[in-house]
Amino acid sequence: MTSSTPDDTSTTARRRTKAPQTRAVALMDAAEQLFITKGIAATSIDDIAAGAQVAKGTFYLYFPSKEALLGALQQRFVDTFCARLQEAMDRHAPGKYRARLKAWVETGLETYLDNVALHDVVFHEYRPEDRRMRNDNVVITQLVTLLKQGDAAGVWEVEDATLTAVILFNALHGVADDTVAMGPHANPVADRRRRARALTRFFEQALRPDDGDDA
Amino acid sequence: MTSSTPDDTSTTARRRTKAPQTRAVALMDAAEQLFITKGIAATSIDDIAAGAQVAKGTFYLYFPSKEALLGALQQRFVDTFCARLQEAMDRHAPGKYRARLKAWVETGLETYLDNVALHDVVFHEYRPEDRRMRNDNVVITQLVTLLKQGDAAGVWEVEDATLTAVILFNALHGVADDTVAMGPHANPVADRRRRARALTRFFEQALRPDDGDDA
Repeated sequence: MTSSTPDDTSTTARRRTKAPQTRAVALMDAAEQLFITKGIAATSIDDIAAGAQVAKGTFYLYFPSKEALLGALQQRFVDTFCARLQEAMDRHAPGKYRARLKAWVETGLETYLDNVALHDVVFHEYRPEDRRMRNDNVVITQLVTLLKQGDAAGVWEVEDATLTAVILFNALHGVADDTVAMGPHANPVADRRRRARALTRFFEQALRPDDGDDA
Repeated sequence: MTSSTPDDTSTTARRRTKAPQTRAVALMDAAEQLFITKGIAATSIDDIAAGAQVAKGTFYLYFPSKEALLGALQQRFVDTFCARLQEAMDRHAPGKYRARLKAWVETGLETYLDNVALHDVVFHEYRPEDRRMRNDNVVITQLVTLLKQGDAAGVWEVEDATLTAVILFNALHGVADDTVAMGPHANPVADRRRRARALTRFFEQALRPDDGDDA
């Protein structure tokens, strides 16, 4: 995704010229790499400070603990995820709700699958309140907005936007997890596209206005 | 759910008369209670053996380790869950696919919410291969069967039954988690019913045969 050297672990060289206010970011970047390569438990605050080329005392100016830094990484993961989805949706005109939902699904699946190692270290080794985090996050909020707009425009019918967003988010998450569980070799681009298409189709069907109740 | 005394921790009295072949079950029952009340880490094999009123050596006749017992508890949770869902579905005639799907949703939500403490201790403290377990289990298999039958009967349209089952299962799981995250007081019976209805409606809409492609 970036134009940096292929060696992603040598992030220190890039940090040297950073201004003081970016030290928190440098610490987070260093921790992220260390957590992925060594695991959270095996990474010390000394390691993180060294990785970010700051003194250990500097660490504590920004984060009270390793756990607090991990919380910041969770937040950054969600925010970045959300920003990518917004970007993808905004490639379509505001009124193109179906196209925006399709972009949400495709980019959501792609972004998750492209960042599985980071996702797992940030969310799976440390899990304080998984349930709340999973369904009470900015990605859900973003989706609620889209669902309400589409409902107001009569493009689809959404009675409870929050509940529907929870359903869509978890369906997407589940399909992504299933893709990962199948292993890297069973996960070519064509298969991702097929899954994104199936999800989009499923969601569109579920959301389209009822044409008569046969229950 | 049982007619035993309200004090669920006094399971030992019930074990005394058990035949030897039920010792594995007694050990699992004792471990389940201890894991819920004390946590997995704080529970020793001694504790479990004492809880099941067997010698410590007997434990090892059935399980090589505490982790192996935990694996057996995971399997039992899934099997029990699945059996309840099957029972609920079988209250409807074999050809009543919509009613069976509705029963699957309602009973799935109920059973999960009634067993959250057990679910969490069994799946959340210990997570060897969560991803695979979450989407490769008998509940999915059961749902795939239902989806294929309904598709063959023309009741709904399912291109990829496994992927659709993954979507439905994760959507249900997500709505259940969201319910739990809202706390016990925000979780009256009426709210559960509302959520089950919303899920059922969503699934029915998503599965009904396409009446023309406007993509």
